[in-house]
Amino acid sequence: MRTEISTLGEFGLIDRLTASITPVNESTKRGVGDDAAVLSYPDKEVLVTTDLLMEGVHFDLTYVPLKHLGYKAAMVNFSDIYAMNGKPRQLTISVALSKRFSVEDVEELYAGIRLACERHEVDVVGGDTSSSLTGLAISCTCIGDAADVVYRSGAKPTDLICVSGDLGGAYMGLQLLEREKAVFHGQKEDIQPDFAGKEYLLERQLKPEARGDVVKQLSDAGIRPTSMIDISDGLSSELLHICKQSGVGCRVYEEHIPIDYQTAVMAEEFNMNLSTCALNGGEDYELLFTVPLEDREKVMALKGIKLIGYMTKPDDGSCLITRDGQEFALKAQGWQHDNKVSN
Amino acid sequence: MRTEISTLGEFGLIDRLTASITPVNESTKRGVGDDAAVLSYPDKEVLVTTDLLMEGVHFDLTYVPLKHLGYKAAMVNFSDIYAMNGKPRQLTISVALSKRFSVEDVEELYAGIRLACERHEVDVVGGDTSSSLTGLAISCTCIGDAADVVYRSGAKPTDLICVSGDLGGAYMGLQLLEREKAVFHGQKEDIQPDFAGKEYLLERQLKPEARGDVVKQLSDAGIRPTSMIDISDGLSSELLHICKQSGVGCRVYEEHIPIDYQTAVMAEEFNMNLSTCALNGGEDYELLFTVPLEDREKVMALKGIKLIGYMTKPDDGSCLITRDGQEFALKAQGWQHDNKVSN
Repeated sequence: MRTEISTLGEFGLIDRLTASITPVNESTKRGVGDDAAVLSYPDKEVLVTTDLLMEGVHFDLTYVPLKHLGYKAAMVNFSDIYAMNGKPRQLTISVALSKRFSVEDVEELYAGIRLACERHEVDVVGGDTSSSLTGLAISCTCIGDAADVVYRSGAKPTDLICVSGDLGGAYMGLQLLEREKAVFHGQKEDIQPDFAGKEYLLERQLKPEARGDVVKQLSDAGIRPTSMIDISDGLSSELLHICKQSGVGCRVYEEHIPIDYQTAVMAEEFNMNLSTCALNGGEDYELLFTVPLEDREKVMALKGIKLIGYMTKPDDGSCLITRDGQEFALKAQGWQHDNKVSN
Repeated sequence: MRTEISTLGEFGLIDRLTASITPVNESTKRGVGDDAAVLSYPDKEVLVTTDLLMEGVHFDLTYVPLKHLGYKAAMVNFSDIYAMNGKPRQLTISVALSKRFSVEDVEELYAGIRLACERHEVDVVGGDTSSSLTGLAISCTCIGDAADVVYRSGAKPTDLICVSGDLGGAYMGLQLLEREKAVFHGQKEDIQPDFAGKEYLLERQLKPEARGDVVKQLSDAGIRPTSMIDISDGLSSELLHICKQSGVGCRVYEEHIPIDYQTAVMAEEFNMNLSTCALNGGEDYELLFTVPLEDREKVMALKGIKLIGYMTKPDDGSCLITRDGQEFALKAQGWQHDNKVSN
């Protein structure tokens, strides 16, 4: 079934997409339906983050289902709020659509956004749809709150460097999808890609989870990170952000960087350096944070958190210590999307 | 001079664009440079509005200078905040750029955004640049505050309908620019378009001013609008929004709709119905609001505010009374950008 967007018009489409939205946060005073959303934050600080995603640059609809895209677009913004030690509360979504998209397509996209919002108790408070000459553009803005904001700038020498989950998986998932796309386009027959045993990597790429659970764990354990950032551009790049803004150096141990088994298998299959994937592959949306040395025992007791190194004086530089004991300066190769303008 | 964006990289470009930004609002705790901006709003309600502008749909760079585009992108968001009886405080800007844009182009765009921000005392607290396969996409989110939010839903029967400035000018400016573009493309010789005597219309289209001054005037005069909206999609469309959300009808008098002399001259030149231009032409960014009947004298004493009609019971419908006394039902023909998906 395909309903043309023109049959509903912008207002009709927005009404349809936002009809059943009921705010769950006390801070949401008025959502969709006026010139602006109205929020109330008398007791906490307000966090704002925004993202603009462009088809063909940030996502490829040949292998990304629209529902997953919506889910991820929301999740990426939640991740930024968690990285400030905050809780996401409201989300606005603007989409620009070319004519090839139907009402059902937009509903799929919104279904993903709303699923993400339900899981993280976030209210959709603004929506805008308009047209685009070529592809799909999605702009999300997330508003959150925090009683005790954690910046990138608070790390001190001797602080321990911690990371949640595992790294490099989202990047390997992307490599896998790109390879299957190339195989598919090179063949005449309609063969199905073989993703058996690689589901975790696909999920890391297509359906990342923002780590609100980690923020809660830390709070429950009475640990206040001295600095925090989410890993969207790769561990190296994010570590260098913290070092620069905190005015410190760091030592990170290759052997302690958490990597999943599937990631390792795929890196071998692709003949890629595994540590490079973990250091520079982006989109893991894990949390990287530092804690004071005295919290060592407490943080080691947490599930799914790894200590990967420690902060140093700025003069000591930012280094990776390899398995064989060599030191290399960390470089921000980063993630490609936003680093260069293509085409 | 043309500097490729790739020579700076995303972070270099953002550093360059945001280097000299100094916040002026007390509510801005931390701007650009972390995972999210940090704001503080202990005493007032927080307003959030967002917009996504796509090249070829919302703007045409053949006749819109980048500095004007930046100015307008910011101004359109400020206008939404003023329409809630608020004051804009913070702005985030994301831009996606294709390869044809240079660092200097982005600086021009930002120069316009920053000029708008300076004039309305708004802080840029977030910036993001990424690439686009085809055109330019700009996403702005504006955060503001209000001690006493005015919604679209508060109008009562007998309330007076008021509008600031004059209407239809931005639409005629667009027609003028489109005509000159067509003329220009049809001719081999490099003739300059003749805009003499039409400067006001061009300014209405290219450099609209959000009416913060009107919000201040109303407040100074002790008038609290019962409902308010900004005119982005045309008077008819906005009036119908207020009527629907307030559960009232309206009577608007054609003869009282404020129209500038230049708008009238151009409508004649284009052989267009002037009232249709004023009712359905978009992008004027004037304020449409209602006040209680007892504020009649006070509101009539204000400069640049016109009474155009009054609210009625819902059963009376929403009507335009023409100069010759006929009644027509108002229709939301609206503004084309967002109402249908093209191409």
